[in-house]
Amino acid sequence: MERKEISKSVLKRLPGYLAYLKSLPDGSSPNISATALANALGMGEVQVRKDLAMVCDGGRPKIGYPREMLIDAIEQFLGYDNTTDAVLIGAGRLGQALLGYGGFAAYGLNILAAFDANPVSSQTEDGKPIYHMDQLEAYCRSHKIRMGIITVPIQHAQSVCNQLIACGIKAIWNFAPTHLEVPANILVQHENMAMSLAVLSMHLQAQMKK
Amino acid sequence: MERKEISKSVLKRLPGYLAYLKSLPDGSSPNISATALANALGMGEVQVRKDLAMVCDGGRPKIGYPREMLIDAIEQFLGYDNTTDAVLIGAGRLGQALLGYGGFAAYGLNILAAFDANPVSSQTEDGKPIYHMDQLEAYCRSHKIRMGIITVPIQHAQSVCNQLIACGIKAIWNFAPTHLEVPANILVQHENMAMSLAVLSMHLQAQMKK
Repeated sequence: MERKEISKSVLKRLPGYLAYLKSLPDGSSPNISATALANALGMGEVQVRKDLAMVCDGGRPKIGYPREMLIDAIEQFLGYDNTTDAVLIGAGRLGQALLGYGGFAAYGLNILAAFDANPVSSQTEDGKPIYHMDQLEAYCRSHKIRMGIITVPIQHAQSVCNQLIACGIKAIWNFAPTHLEVPANILVQHENMAMSLAVLSMHLQAQMKK
Repeated sequence: MERKEISKSVLKRLPGYLAYLKSLPDGSSPNISATALANALGMGEVQVRKDLAMVCDGGRPKIGYPREMLIDAIEQFLGYDNTTDAVLIGAGRLGQALLGYGGFAAYGLNILAAFDANPVSSQTEDGKPIYHMDQLEAYCRSHKIRMGIITVPIQHAQSVCNQLIACGIKAIWNFAPTHLEVPANILVQHENMAMSLAVLSMHLQAQMKK
């Protein structure tokens, strides 16, 4: 189907629908309606209906969507069917945790290797290679890498970001709690877990005072 | 100092300042100005000046802030000095990765134990205990736990959330890609990594077509 314009809030919800649809047991009904999905996830029916209509043409009144078709449509829409190869920069504790987390494969992300300015070993516990930063450019060029994940300390984040861009990277997933300056054709997605923790911690402090 | 009203955008930036300040070598100047901090992080001077003034009274013209005082003030402001004990529900791959990640200690988060509806072992590789969900309430009550981390599949997230609230939890860090309904006094912070990946993947797809 023709791709319609898509908002970030829709992108927030689609992975949730997908996870639910995929979790249904094999013997479930082959069709699912927006209403059933909305009820199962405790969401508004109108919103679910609109979201599904944006990604899949196969919905029929009173029957709903063929479940497998809907799964395929959402996966295709989110790009999960094209596996994206990525490199990760900064093989510290967070970097190693992300490298070791197998769950990204379900989202089409394949972290091929890590790079570090001072690699302490040549591979992770799971056997993924850790190379010196000197090898980054050659690796990215030969493997045609388009996505980079930044898990270095904050003061190195911008220079690592610049290096990734010089190596042909177009999309950056940034776990360093800092803003990155990039050209207009590069997309940076920030994952600020420190901020989340600060927000939660402040809420707890405020609760204690009551 | 009296606590002023704080926006989420300030909370986003403070962990970055803190990480940078703590990364400076021992022999560095004992003082740091907002200008120096802004330059080092590639940020606007006015913004950094305002942010620092919000958390610390100790800034002096032309000298800046005593670095240690500023570190303490930000840590106190963010609640990193009060360690928060938390439980994690869902000892799957993501849950185990978070349990094994030592870096949260720097943010005052201490994940004491994991709980699972079907624990496959009694502890993680790092020796953190994994209990059956039946033990959740007794554990939370006896350890006075106020924070819960949800890493269960989407269709169990709301019921786990309800159980946590029934156990006295006031703040929830939710990694399941779904909205959670909670009473007004409970704060939920969502970490939607699937959404981040979808946004990055879409950007790459759009770039390929050029």
